[in-house]
Amino acid sequence: MTLDATLARVDADLEPALDRLMTLLRIPSISTDPAFAKDCQAAADHLVGVLEELGITAKAHPTPGHPMVVGHSDGPGPHLLFYGHYDVQPVDPIDLWHRDPFDPAIEDTAKGQVIRGRGAADDKGQLMTFLEALRAIKAETGTLPCKLTVLFEGEEESGSPSLVPFMKAHAEELQADIAVICDTGLYGHDTPAIITMLRGLLGEELTITGPKLDLHSGMYGGIAMNPARVLVDILSNLHDDNGTVQVPGFYENIPEVPEDVQAQWDALGFDPSAFLGDVGLSIPAGEQDRTPLQMIWSRPTAEINGMTSGYTGDGFKTVLPSIASAKVSFRMVAGQDPDAIRIAFRDWVRAQLPADCTVEFKSHGASPASSMDLNHPVFDAARRGLSEEWPNPAAFVGAGGSIPIAGYFQDILDLQSLLVGFSRADDGLHSPNEKYDVESFHKGTRSWVRILDEIAKM
Amino acid sequence: MTLDATLARVDADLEPALDRLMTLLRIPSISTDPAFAKDCQAAADHLVGVLEELGITAKAHPTPGHPMVVGHSDGPGPHLLFYGHYDVQPVDPIDLWHRDPFDPAIEDTAKGQVIRGRGAADDKGQLMTFLEALRAIKAETGTLPCKLTVLFEGEEESGSPSLVPFMKAHAEELQADIAVICDTGLYGHDTPAIITMLRGLLGEELTITGPKLDLHSGMYGGIAMNPARVLVDILSNLHDDNGTVQVPGFYENIPEVPEDVQAQWDALGFDPSAFLGDVGLSIPAGEQDRTPLQMIWSRPTAEINGMTSGYTGDGFKTVLPSIASAKVSFRMVAGQDPDAIRIAFRDWVRAQLPADCTVEFKSHGASPASSMDLNHPVFDAARRGLSEEWPNPAAFVGAGGSIPIAGYFQDILDLQSLLVGFSRADDGLHSPNEKYDVESFHKGTRSWVRILDEIAKM
Repeated sequence: MTLDATLARVDADLEPALDRLMTLLRIPSISTDPAFAKDCQAAADHLVGVLEELGITAKAHPTPGHPMVVGHSDGPGPHLLFYGHYDVQPVDPIDLWHRDPFDPAIEDTAKGQVIRGRGAADDKGQLMTFLEALRAIKAETGTLPCKLTVLFEGEEESGSPSLVPFMKAHAEELQADIAVICDTGLYGHDTPAIITMLRGLLGEELTITGPKLDLHSGMYGGIAMNPARVLVDILSNLHDDNGTVQVPGFYENIPEVPEDVQAQWDALGFDPSAFLGDVGLSIPAGEQDRTPLQMIWSRPTAEINGMTSGYTGDGFKTVLPSIASAKVSFRMVAGQDPDAIRIAFRDWVRAQLPADCTVEFKSHGASPASSMDLNHPVFDAARRGLSEEWPNPAAFVGAGGSIPIAGYFQDILDLQSLLVGFSRADDGLHSPNEKYDVESFHKGTRSWVRILDEIAKM
Repeated sequence: MTLDATLARVDADLEPALDRLMTLLRIPSISTDPAFAKDCQAAADHLVGVLEELGITAKAHPTPGHPMVVGHSDGPGPHLLFYGHYDVQPVDPIDLWHRDPFDPAIEDTAKGQVIRGRGAADDKGQLMTFLEALRAIKAETGTLPCKLTVLFEGEEESGSPSLVPFMKAHAEELQADIAVICDTGLYGHDTPAIITMLRGLLGEELTITGPKLDLHSGMYGGIAMNPARVLVDILSNLHDDNGTVQVPGFYENIPEVPEDVQAQWDALGFDPSAFLGDVGLSIPAGEQDRTPLQMIWSRPTAEINGMTSGYTGDGFKTVLPSIASAKVSFRMVAGQDPDAIRIAFRDWVRAQLPADCTVEFKSHGASPASSMDLNHPVFDAARRGLSEEWPNPAAFVGAGGSIPIAGYFQDILDLQSLLVGFSRADDGLHSPNEKYDVESFHKGTRSWVRILDEIAKM
């Protein structure tokens, strides 16, 4: 494969490539609304056709929900499993769109040309960057650059109910060396990113009972134990003044960010004031001896997500509540065992419970953190490819939340994921007037050409 | 007035007295249900007739709600304003009654004879003890024992909407030396009580705002200030480990219980285990250097009555809430200025607020505590009278909650209240199968004869 010639072909082919994307965008494949089931089928069938054009044997597998498109082609080098999703979010509130969401167009804006339409960025535009890269390579070299399995899902925007059963049933067919996922964003306007750490999640609900019924605060106020007071006392101990979580063992076995990755993070010039300013805050509120990016990427958290006790309607009731409850979640990082943390948390709560109170716990699930093994050469290959294409070098970054598909690849197929995408913060995913920059599409396609070129050299 | 002869007349007249009560109990004067408006009028008219029989000039004054019965009679000695209410609670759930609530009867029970029926204890049976005492005195002596004004309300069980306007409009007509209220209970089975301290109430709602919108805990968890965490931190400081409220100045100017009153309290043999055991608790949770009775009668409190933040429905949402709020109330005692406490509380909250949060307060009203001036001779007169009648001496006690009518007498008419009643803890006020012990009615009537005898001697 001759890299420069292939990139030149991508440039020359931009207009027809955009036209091909438009064809996919015109299909209103809203997965959550049964009225659009036929359109989801149509989008799946369309993608089967695109894959077949590229020489990839493909099929739309029926599921209890929308079809799962799976394609295979043989080839040299490492075996990639490429994932994207062809379904899109609903378009409500439709009044806020300035054009028909399924009549996409290229629009000129103050910030450059954009592809406007539902799914332009999430995820049709992104998955097409990979397919357009394959198309250019095939056109230039006559073959695909490596052994490929492709998986396109049609239920990502509606909770992926068929995904896990399908992956389990087709585990053998989906085996590969590494998964490649194109459903994420650039770090900054000109800075590509590869997500190599994803935090996990542990959800707990605790309910503290004091008196066996709600009491009148005149009759019992001052002598009866108030479970709301117990709850705030316990939860106030969740963090110390430094923002450090006080559950014993919480930070055990958590690795420090590798020095080279830390150096990449430092070079990103993350501006916490801007990040927090968007939501009306100004001061990083996490562990005070950690950098802001560590707070959201590499350090675990404990947060109160919900809390209720007593009377919460309008006006006032002089009730001493019988119960007080809270939903608490922990964002987990590599090294933490969710089950151990759950036990430690419950023990820590129980140890603080006054004699007259009881506590009940309810689990709201747990998923461990994912941390990619950066020794796998695909990560450096991708970083080199991306860094060549974009003004700023690519960085290995973290994701504060989980990306379920990466977890499924890890858990079910034992696959690490290369998470690369070209969406920008202002793309309006899930919102009216969703767009994808023409630059994201064009340089995204070029990025994949470069990444695949690097992977071929591995 | 010859005391013994009058008491003997009360004894001899018990059966007709009970019959007279039954007549009143048969009137279904449910004030909250408009369907019973005619019955409320009938109860008022009936009481006007009873008062006229006693030589008290009486009238049922119309109000926007149910009538207010006012009666006057001249006489020697101090001028008493006697208050009771002729309306009753609804009877739901009717299935749980073992007889028609408005077909009252004397029933024999394991604990003695009871008057069964809605309103038997609350408040028709109680107000009739006073009227029957007047009847016996009049029959024996030919005159009433003192100058009297009578006020019977018909909206006590439905929030007393007409009471304050009526009292203000008729302030002159209602002037007296002291108010006498018969709508409370015995302290114990054989121990009469005079309530001389009523706690006041201050209601506050605080709403803490952190980020300007709910955030995703994956993206912002660990770096964004969580207002639920701020709220629990602040509220956890409301009490120290000793149960002492930490708002500055909270305990300033609070008098200690007078020694003689404290001695009465000590003699009551209050059993906190039994009191708390009824509601599933065992340990007095207030100021640890105070007695349990002080905790509920003479010491102020701070309680969380309601609290909410974030997601409180079923399941889990990984939201970082934008706001967290709580309803907090303070039971106030004599010496405390509700307005000063409100300001101190708000200042105390604000002083703990982190830089990135704001707080808003909403007032839910304030009523000061009432504390009777025990130098007024009516209190000792009543205590002597009660102590003669009952097996155990009467005690000056506190009431943990407010009794609105006593507050209105104080605020609007500048009157102290003598609060005496004969209800027992198992009377089932507001519940199905409400009863009033025949003993309560009989000894209650005798108690008023004795109290009025003592007052006449003042």
